[in-house]
Amino acid sequence: MTTTPVAPFTDLDAAPATPDFGPATQLTCRECGTSYSLGAAYACVECFGPLEVGYDFSGVSRAVIESGPQNMWRYSCLLPVASYAGDERNLNPGLTRLVRADNLATALGITGTLWVKDDSGNPTHSFKDRVVAVAQSAARRLGLGTIACASTGNLANAVAAAAARAGQDSVVVIPSNLESGKVLTTAAYGGILLAVDGNYDDVNRLCSELVGDPLTADWGFVNVNLRPYYAEGSKTVGYEIAEQLGWRLPQQVVAPIASGSLLTKVDKAFREFVSLGLVEETPWKVFGAQATGCSPVSQAFRAGHDVVRPVRPDTIAKSLAIGNPADGPYALDVVRRTGGAIEDVSDAEVVEGIRLLAETEGIFAETAGGVVVATLRKLLATGQLDPTQETVILNTGDGLKTLDAIAEHVGPTATIAHDVDEVTRVLAEHHARHR
Amino acid sequence: MTTTPVAPFTDLDAAPATPDFGPATQLTCRECGTSYSLGAAYACVECFGPLEVGYDFSGVSRAVIESGPQNMWRYSCLLPVASYAGDERNLNPGLTRLVRADNLATALGITGTLWVKDDSGNPTHSFKDRVVAVAQSAARRLGLGTIACASTGNLANAVAAAAARAGQDSVVVIPSNLESGKVLTTAAYGGILLAVDGNYDDVNRLCSELVGDPLTADWGFVNVNLRPYYAEGSKTVGYEIAEQLGWRLPQQVVAPIASGSLLTKVDKAFREFVSLGLVEETPWKVFGAQATGCSPVSQAFRAGHDVVRPVRPDTIAKSLAIGNPADGPYALDVVRRTGGAIEDVSDAEVVEGIRLLAETEGIFAETAGGVVVATLRKLLATGQLDPTQETVILNTGDGLKTLDAIAEHVGPTATIAHDVDEVTRVLAEHHARHR
Repeated sequence: MTTTPVAPFTDLDAAPATPDFGPATQLTCRECGTSYSLGAAYACVECFGPLEVGYDFSGVSRAVIESGPQNMWRYSCLLPVASYAGDERNLNPGLTRLVRADNLATALGITGTLWVKDDSGNPTHSFKDRVVAVAQSAARRLGLGTIACASTGNLANAVAAAAARAGQDSVVVIPSNLESGKVLTTAAYGGILLAVDGNYDDVNRLCSELVGDPLTADWGFVNVNLRPYYAEGSKTVGYEIAEQLGWRLPQQVVAPIASGSLLTKVDKAFREFVSLGLVEETPWKVFGAQATGCSPVSQAFRAGHDVVRPVRPDTIAKSLAIGNPADGPYALDVVRRTGGAIEDVSDAEVVEGIRLLAETEGIFAETAGGVVVATLRKLLATGQLDPTQETVILNTGDGLKTLDAIAEHVGPTATIAHDVDEVTRVLAEHHARHR
Repeated sequence: MTTTPVAPFTDLDAAPATPDFGPATQLTCRECGTSYSLGAAYACVECFGPLEVGYDFSGVSRAVIESGPQNMWRYSCLLPVASYAGDERNLNPGLTRLVRADNLATALGITGTLWVKDDSGNPTHSFKDRVVAVAQSAARRLGLGTIACASTGNLANAVAAAAARAGQDSVVVIPSNLESGKVLTTAAYGGILLAVDGNYDDVNRLCSELVGDPLTADWGFVNVNLRPYYAEGSKTVGYEIAEQLGWRLPQQVVAPIASGSLLTKVDKAFREFVSLGLVEETPWKVFGAQATGCSPVSQAFRAGHDVVRPVRPDTIAKSLAIGNPADGPYALDVVRRTGGAIEDVSDAEVVEGIRLLAETEGIFAETAGGVVVATLRKLLATGQLDPTQETVILNTGDGLKTLDAIAEHVGPTATIAHDVDEVTRVLAEHHARHR
């Protein structure tokens, strides 16, 4: 319970010759298996495949984890971070609530236990705090003084806030036509915020050019040249679910798919816990959720394809609107291997999903959470998800950031004069309607 | 760590004849000492003084608390709630982060340790979740099936969400001219939301009339007829600070003042921990923070008055804008008894306070948090707060709810074409300005 005093900020100019990445030993190409030393690299020189962190786990036990801090750093022994990463200045995200959702289960006809893993409780209210925390740690080890990203929302908030907390520079690049609320939230943290004339594709292209430019020699783009580390942060969602269930695995998990990374990392977390003997090996199924307006992985799943054909996103679920998802094929692999499924839902269903979760459990999710709830309903209706099994659904962000999505759909029950008789009348009408 | 399965929802129509309020034994008038049995009462029949919960504490120990859940219910043995209150459906708020704020300390010239108690991490992102949780529990014990409130923001969110989670009815009454963002956030949870033509005074007057009306016989107005229970929820902020510091008290605490209740309850929590032997008795000073545009308690402190003269609020810190604060005189007592002080700050200083906290610690506070940070700075400048002592400041809410307050003050560093040369130019200019 005691909050450990934070160690003095590590000097970013003094990265050691052999960086300490804890249990991580190398980067390995997912496609051809070529290995590389740990550095700011993300694509295989041989085959252009994505690089993933490799480990030599030792000294991992329930006791070690349980004696750790009440945040994601309790899993340091399973991440590409030094053992002291949690003592360096960061936002200390994680260990968010796992909420038992009996009302939602009843509303959907689920008789097994239903849980919501609610990552809106993170410091900047999305799961992106987890991935940024690991990327920020990697940037320190690699002597990269500035953390950067291209983003349209949650990631921008998470990077700017984490940099402020660490007293380091940040560069966040956004499209200039972004909603003012998202601009303000990021700008409040005071880093460099570049609004680029153009759309998100233009922003991404600019960032790709910047990665190779001498200007950015000490920049860590969290989701580009630090991506292998960044992505591993999502494993902590899976670790927490298993530990919070009392060191066991759920039977079904429903995760949103943007790049596809989160879904694959939750599965990876479960596999690691099993292989390390931390939980009993019981079967689990992983389900994916997309908005129909950006559903390339769902379409590939339905068509039985192994490749994912890029789409142009058009949905209110902007935090999931990645038309060409880097980890889409791997997400397909996980879902097919575990016997799950992937579905997509309309924007109207997304709004219904947001409202259903808020009205039944008091959890106000962003659009991505609405996608997951609506997909859960669809998976039940189509018989793909078993209503009698224990199920965990992921809420990755906060409704306060996507108010526009519900603006036309909710409002006051009534507007009245300040008069008790008016209240009486409105309540009588309301109860008559709902009886 | 394991999340305890939630007990079946208590039947609200079956309140027992002798309600179980745990260690609470009676309600006592703060002015004349008259005692009453525990019920939905809030004012003394004899003298109209406010009623406060009285206790018979037994079986309280560090071990009992430490073995409790990772939320405010670990302090059930110190609250007017049944021991099983935390197992009934509620939002399980509390145990928010205590963040060591070395960057902010350095920026302000504080050499003692500085901490931020960050209540924006609660389920609906303000400390109101704590007080509503205790009021909701009391409503259950008293057989009140509907929870209600008049509010312009955080309390409305907290009541509507808590009711949704419990599957019970809620009635939230707001002024019809409230910002649409706050209306949407409350409406999302689906309870009855009444927009009243008029200002907040009209809303409050209507609610006072409603409390006596047969229509509301089974309503618990959390901050009216359940106020004694509601207010006790704020003690958990003080308990958590002491436990998170490793079972000891800080030397200085800075709290915002709206009604004044939170400030007095943090002090009460410290006194209880001392009297129960849970912490060593070391001296502490309590400081109060107001916005100049609504600073009746600060004005009374400065003038040396015991009474608080009501004002008409005019400040961007709307969550603190109570012109006639019910607990103002008690807040004055606490501040004077402990040797603290009360200051107030301009709206411009509030915005600077929000930005300073965000830029140094990555914590994006609502206006009330800005008031506290700006007041901390003023208390240092005037020599009233000791920069060498250990200090805890309270952030009670989330910047996402008060974006309007900073809209004119923050924005992108620059808007540019998607061109690496443009980025190079902007960064060179930025670094030249900041060197």
